[in-house]
Amino acid sequence: MYGAGDVRAEMLPDPTLTAPTDAVVRVVRTCVCGSDLHPYHSMPASAQGRPMGHEFIGVVEEVGAEVATIKRGDFVIAPFAWFDNTCEFCREGLTTSCLHGGFFSEAQAEAVRVPQADGTLIKAPVGEDSALLPSLLTLSDVLITGHHAAVTAAVNARTSVTVIGDGAVGLLAVLAAKRLGAEQIVLMGRHQARTDLGRDFGATDVVAERGEEGIAKVRELTGGQGTHAVLECVGHMPAYQQAVGTVRAGGVISRVGVPQYEEAPVGFASLFGRNITLTGGPGAQRAYIEELLPDVLEGRIEPGRVFDRTVGLDETPEGYRAMDQREALKVLVRP
Amino acid sequence: MYGAGDVRAEMLPDPTLTAPTDAVVRVVRTCVCGSDLHPYHSMPASAQGRPMGHEFIGVVEEVGAEVATIKRGDFVIAPFAWFDNTCEFCREGLTTSCLHGGFFSEAQAEAVRVPQADGTLIKAPVGEDSALLPSLLTLSDVLITGHHAAVTAAVNARTSVTVIGDGAVGLLAVLAAKRLGAEQIVLMGRHQARTDLGRDFGATDVVAERGEEGIAKVRELTGGQGTHAVLECVGHMPAYQQAVGTVRAGGVISRVGVPQYEEAPVGFASLFGRNITLTGGPGAQRAYIEELLPDVLEGRIEPGRVFDRTVGLDETPEGYRAMDQREALKVLVRP
Repeated sequence: MYGAGDVRAEMLPDPTLTAPTDAVVRVVRTCVCGSDLHPYHSMPASAQGRPMGHEFIGVVEEVGAEVATIKRGDFVIAPFAWFDNTCEFCREGLTTSCLHGGFFSEAQAEAVRVPQADGTLIKAPVGEDSALLPSLLTLSDVLITGHHAAVTAAVNARTSVTVIGDGAVGLLAVLAAKRLGAEQIVLMGRHQARTDLGRDFGATDVVAERGEEGIAKVRELTGGQGTHAVLECVGHMPAYQQAVGTVRAGGVISRVGVPQYEEAPVGFASLFGRNITLTGGPGAQRAYIEELLPDVLEGRIEPGRVFDRTVGLDETPEGYRAMDQREALKVLVRP
Repeated sequence: MYGAGDVRAEMLPDPTLTAPTDAVVRVVRTCVCGSDLHPYHSMPASAQGRPMGHEFIGVVEEVGAEVATIKRGDFVIAPFAWFDNTCEFCREGLTTSCLHGGFFSEAQAEAVRVPQADGTLIKAPVGEDSALLPSLLTLSDVLITGHHAAVTAAVNARTSVTVIGDGAVGLLAVLAAKRLGAEQIVLMGRHQARTDLGRDFGATDVVAERGEEGIAKVRELTGGQGTHAVLECVGHMPAYQQAVGTVRAGGVISRVGVPQYEEAPVGFASLFGRNITLTGGPGAQRAYIEELLPDVLEGRIEPGRVFDRTVGLDETPEGYRAMDQREALKVLVRP
């Protein structure tokens, strides 16, 4: 990406091992993320440009001398962050705060260097021609992010849920909430093709209205009180305001859309007076992939349905354009 | 209270039953709360004035026709809110959001009308001359509020804790965290008589510095990472900022000091990027009193030590002055 609206496919040298704990993975599938659209809207023009992408699955090409559990030829899933899976934060499950970790930013490519390969990569028993590839790719970000929202909001069979946002993360937050047992799931979104997929994933109600009108509709659907959990999958201030308006007293707002603001209302009137909990953050936890992978492999969930367009690596710029114009929900890239 | 700095003791008619679910309680002990000092600083002068106080224990004088479990002569503890203990929120334990509830505001008096007496009042097997009265009175607010901070922050034996504020709530948050098993409890406060009491209650470390310097000290004491739980018992923005600075990645900030601000930093840099949870609110849960009362009655905890001055009802204005000037930590009022 060279600036807002300016994405180019270019030939660069292949990545190589730089540490004995690295692996190099040949990318079999990658994709464009909703969060990639933020710089697509706002990045200042640059002569140098920057690589893009943080979601990928692929085949291990090469491993460093200290990599013990991953070997050449393994088919692997990479979460959007790398981590050693041994530090004090990883041991508590918070792999996104690994003391030796970081976030991928060059996965829209033919190959990626993976630091801390033993901690980061998770093997999947599939071939490169598997029909499960789209669903496996969602374990790299959008499914585990939606799952993180549902888990941190403590969703279970007794929880009513509002999901804000009908992008890929919002739809998979619906799927995750359903999978955790929620019986009422209200999806707030206004693109019918997307909300229809949300219904397939488990949404019991769809609210197309936004702002005060949308809040009133959700309250109508929930006996006037709002829902125990609100999964905020957008990141803009109006979505935060909708979350505050739709959450039930004593409930939880979990944010997984990267906040595009720093300050927000949290005082007596918005959170404190009603004992509302605000939680969430980056959710690339290794344990999530380990928990969700069997459901994908055995076909109990089909999160890959969020991909509605496939392009080659050279056509990635067109993928950005199509997602930005909302012609595509999520674009799969096949190098 | 007739305005900032203007508290008067006056004779008013005794309260009477107004609903069949009411009781009238003769006040045996009440007290002045840190939160009473907010209007003491800022209330506009008024010809009418307003009654004050929300913490009291006493003896039931009279009950309405529908009151079933409480009778004349019972010694009772009242939390700072009333509730029916049967609505959908009460059944989930969130009695402060009772659909038929409210907050007391006239307990600095000889007698108080208690709505929803069956739900609200909790009997204690003591006489009016019990040495336990100060500790029992803390069950009306400051102990259950400190306990609420510790419970909502999920404090247990594996949790390191920072408590911000050396007022009565902060000191009893220390006691509550210790009672729940926390092994490291850092108390941030700068009044040595108070922090000494905090050490008695279980604080393992005291940090007198504030702001960036205080944050650096807490991080030094915790291997550079901050603590799993931060109990914010003040309510002003600098305390919130200290909480964000001292909380560990993946940790919880619980606020029980009533926020004196509406907007605060919650974005990527402050909460989101490190998966920080923000929780807390009013903590007058009935279940807390039921859980803590046996520990008070059997002497396992002595929260009444936060009272360091006793006045008569007529001297209540002097009690406000002494707390405002920090001559007294918390003032007990004996009608």
